[in-house]
Order: sequence, then structure tokens, then C-alpha cells
Amino acid sequence: MEKDKLIQVHKSIQPYIHNTTVLTSKLIDGIAGSQLFFKCENFQKMGAFKMRGATNAIINLSEAQKNKGVVTHSSGNFAQALALSAQSLGVRAFIVMPSTAPQVKKDAVKGYGGIIVECEPTLTARETTAKEIQEKEDVTFIHPSNNIDVILGQGTACKELLENEPDLDYIFVPVGGGGLIAGTALSAYYFGNNCKVIGGEPFEADDAYRSLQSGVIQANTSTNTIADGLKTQLGDVNFPIIQKHVDKIIRVTEAEIVAAMKLIWERLKIVSEPSSAVALAAFLQEKDIFKNKKIGIIISGGNVDLSHLPF
Amino acid sequence: MEKDKLIQVHKSIQPYIHNTTVLTSKLIDGIAGSQLFFKCENFQKMGAFKMRGATNAIINLSEAQKNKGVVTHSSGNFAQALALSAQSLGVRAFIVMPSTAPQVKKDAVKGYGGIIVECEPTLTARETTAKEIQEKEDVTFIHPSNNIDVILGQGTACKELLENEPDLDYIFVPVGGGGLIAGTALSAYYFGNNCKVIGGEPFEADDAYRSLQSGVIQANTSTNTIADGLKTQLGDVNFPIIQKHVDKIIRVTEAEIVAAMKLIWERLKIVSEPSSAVALAAFLQEKDIFKNKKIGIIISGGNVDLSHLPF
Repeated sequence: MEKDKLIQVHKSIQPYIHNTTVLTSKLIDGIAGSQLFFKCENFQKMGAFKMRGATNAIINLSEAQKNKGVVTHSSGNFAQALALSAQSLGVRAFIVMPSTAPQVKKDAVKGYGGIIVECEPTLTARETTAKEIQEKEDVTFIHPSNNIDVILGQGTACKELLENEPDLDYIFVPVGGGGLIAGTALSAYYFGNNCKVIGGEPFEADDAYRSLQSGVIQANTSTNTIADGLKTQLGDVNFPIIQKHVDKIIRVTEAEIVAAMKLIWERLKIVSEPSSAVALAAFLQEKDIFKNKKIGIIISGGNVDLSHLPF
Repeated sequence: MEKDKLIQVHKSIQPYIHNTTVLTSKLIDGIAGSQLFFKCENFQKMGAFKMRGATNAIINLSEAQKNKGVVTHSSGNFAQALALSAQSLGVRAFIVMPSTAPQVKKDAVKGYGGIIVECEPTLTARETTAKEIQEKEDVTFIHPSNNIDVILGQGTACKELLENEPDLDYIFVPVGGGGLIAGTALSAYYFGNNCKVIGGEPFEADDAYRSLQSGVIQANTSTNTIADGLKTQLGDVNFPIIQKHVDKIIRVTEAEIVAAMKLIWERLKIVSEPSSAVALAAFLQEKDIFKNKKIGIIISGGNVDLSHLPF
């Protein structure tokens, strides 16, 4: 049933998303000792895979809900994704953003027609403000990662990757709020040929690693990582899927993230976020285990501040 | 006859090159007021269009010449291109490089099996050293841009672009030594539907602009440009083709180059050289003349030092 659901989700969001290209590099394969296939969601609309889940979440609202609108809180890619997908589907979108968010991110949300509501830069303030908007405007709250429609939408990137490369042995994805890895794990389970999913996570924000170890959702104790998209926490919707379908989580250092990011930029010639490099960094850390395998790597996004690069 | 020749050249180099992807961006189209199609030769093997011409030049040698080998002088992309294409075709390649060339470029040439011969960092020393190698080793000299087989090879990027988008009104290319623009102009003439070719050139290295104005090849008076691939001079093989088939040359400032480069990186999410941005910068300077047209832009390469970016 989840398989049919994923097929239907993919069909319904297809008019609103790009089937992004898959890149390879002989030089990276040489370093890796395996064949690597990079699914380039940095080329996705608004620059990240989040467009998939946001679009699916809005499509799955009732007509009454669509007429009223949606709200989320995000300072990152989901803010732009919900604004743009809402605009594409003719739905109002309120985006709660911390007042300290960079102007360029606020401008992007505005450019996509999102209605920005500023709040204090704390998680409590974000949640409270979103709740207030939800009640005052009678709109539907869409969580950036802990929502089944968002998760299924994110899973379509992996479905497309497997349509290109059906015999992948492993797919590596970065782990932040858990939406991408949960969706990827479902798609790999239903559409892969015994394809395993492994998460990459910064040591500096390793809630998923510790949650899988303990069997209970753990909070991040620090979020001091360059991979700014991965500072968020797992949730009760995606965690059970991750427990069931994800092979393991590999933690990486900040230096490993920067080195992998540099390799991606220099060799694949693409602009991608530090968060995207975490998946490759995780693979490279244990590459000797995966000799001569076919490996998928999901490049999650490309929205990066060019004036603040780590190299 | 040139048309048949171009078709045959494309067929013969196809096994050794990538048919690179064509990217678009709604946001850039909005700024441009036209539909832009970016032919991404930064994704080409060794990271630049030069792979096409180098491969074709070697394929067109006699068996006796192939057995002996080739030589060129270059500190840029043609050095890597000749080394890699020679390696692919089982031919020896001597690459004369200035002793001051960055280690990373020397390493890349070595990585592709090229035999590096260092010389003093002057044009005279480069030419003299290449001549010495040519005589001593009895190898064939391949000029990076002033060689008809190189020119025809470079023209295949435009041929592929027109196979994707047959109705382009204009194609913009950067002008350095003149090989790319001459090959592009031939392909546009034979395979386009009344498609005009326009060159972009830095004010700081405007030999092609002044040569077309005067009807005689002019030397660069300065080469103080960030577009390091465009410091070279036109030659007597490509200049007549440029005179006959290129619509015009638009000169751009260093600030225009950097702004166009930033737009490409931020919006197309690709890593590309400053030289590549010159074509887009030229278009943007005169964009009001080209309203609602279909425009091809050739992104020439992606070999850039990430630790020395202009933004």
C-alpha cells in the first residue's frame, strides 16, 4: 500500500518538480573504489529536495484547507519550498522566520509569494508564532520533516534515482529532521533491488545516531556544525520509519564535511550545500567496506552563501 | 563539405566526450527577458570544451604520427585536454608548461599521463621549447586554438546544443584564442535555423573586437582580466572563419564578468570559470536588444581555484 502511495505521490507532484540529473565522476570513483551516482537536488526548483515534500503536502490538503492556506516555521530551504509550492498551487503560505534570518533568505521567500511573519530567534518563539498564525488565520500547519505527506514527497528523489540506476547497492543521504532519510528508506525498500539506505550525520548534531542506538528519540546536545540544514531534530512520524528501514547512521567530523564538499565542487562542478556533502563524507569514511559497489548519493541542495565558503 | 566534415568529426569524437547537459533557470530568464539555454561544458571530461578539439586533432593524425606522439604549450585547459585525449587514444603527449604554473595544474596533466616539460614563463620560451621537443622527439605540434581540427572539434558543442534546441536565435560564446567561437560559428551556420553567433570578450583582452573592426589580427595590449582563459590571441586559421561567420563581439568589464559569474553559480548551481561568465555578461549588457529571443550560452569550463574566488 505504501508502494502504491509512493507511485501516486510521484505522479501527482511531477508537474511541479524537476526530475533532476544524475552526475558521475571517474575521478571520484577512483578515490571511492566504487561507482558513485549523485542525484543532484541542488538543481531542483528553489534549489533543494524540500520542494518535493512541500508540494505533496499541499496537494494532499482538502479543498477547504487549500482555500484557507498553510503555515510553517523555517529559516532554511523548507521556507522557500512551501512558499514556492503554495504559489504554484494557488495557495496562501505564511512563513514564520526568525528576525535574525539573512535578508537574502527573506527576499527569496517573498519572491515566491510567501507571507513572512517574523519572530524571536528561538524554537519556542517559532512554534508559538506558527500556532498563533494557525489559529488566527485558520490555516494548516505543515511541519518541514515530521509529516507523512512531506516524507513521501521527499522519497520521490530516491525513486527517480532508482529509475536511472536500478541496481544500487546503497544510497547515502544526509540526516537533519529525518524527512529525507525516511522517504528515501521507503522508496529504496519498495523500488530498490535489496538496496540499503545509510544516513550521514555531523558528530556535532548526532541526534539520529543516538536515537537509533537507544531506540528513543534523543535531542541534539550541540548543533555547532557547518551543515546548517542538519541542525533539526527527528520526529515521531519519521523515527519509526527510520528505525525500520535505515541500515545505519555514520557520523562525520566538520573537516570531513568540508573535504567532501570541496571534492563535490571541484570534481562534479556543482554548487552544493555543506549538508549535501555529509552523505559523501559518510561514505568516504567507510569506503573500504563498500568496495566495488554501486552507490547512490543524494545531493540535497545548493542554496549556499557564496561569500562565506569554507575554502 | 564543411557541414559533412562537422558531422563526421562529431561521430568520431563521440566515444571520447560527454554530450553535456543543457540547463535553464526561470529566474535568469526573468532577468534576461529572453529564454536562455546554457550548454554546460564545465561537465565535459577534464572540465572544459577543449577536450573536444584536442580529441579531434589527435584522431586526425596519421598512424605514423600517432605512434610518435604530440606536443603543445599551455598552462590552461588545453594542457589537460591534450594529455587526457592522448591518453584515451594511446598516444604520447608532451606538454610545455611555464615553471610558474600552479602545482594543481601540473598534477592534473600528470594525472592524465602527460609528460610535462617546464620552461620560463614567457610566450617566446614556450614556443621555443615546444619547437625543440617537436624536433627532438619527432612529434606533431597541436596548437590550442589555431588548428582546423581543433576548431571543428570545438564546434561540436554548438552542434549538440542545436540538437537540443534547434530554434536558437543567438549563441553567445567567450572569445580567447578563437577556436571555440570559430567552431561554434561554423556549426551555427550549418546546423542552426538562421542562428547568429556573438562573442563575449573582456575589455582587458579585446584583440578579437579590434581585429574584427580593423580587418587585421590585432595583439592584446593588456591581459589584466579575471577571465584567465581569454588572454590568448586569435590566429590566422580561425580569424577568417570569425570574420565570415561571427555577427559581432561585445566587450565587458571585469565587474560585469564577476556579476555574471555570481549569477551562474547562485542560480544554475554550477561551478564555472570566470571565462565562462563572459558570454552571459555580454548578453546581459545588451539584453534589451534581444527581448523574447531564444539564446544559447556556452559555459566553457569549470576548472577554477576555489580558494581564490572573486566573491
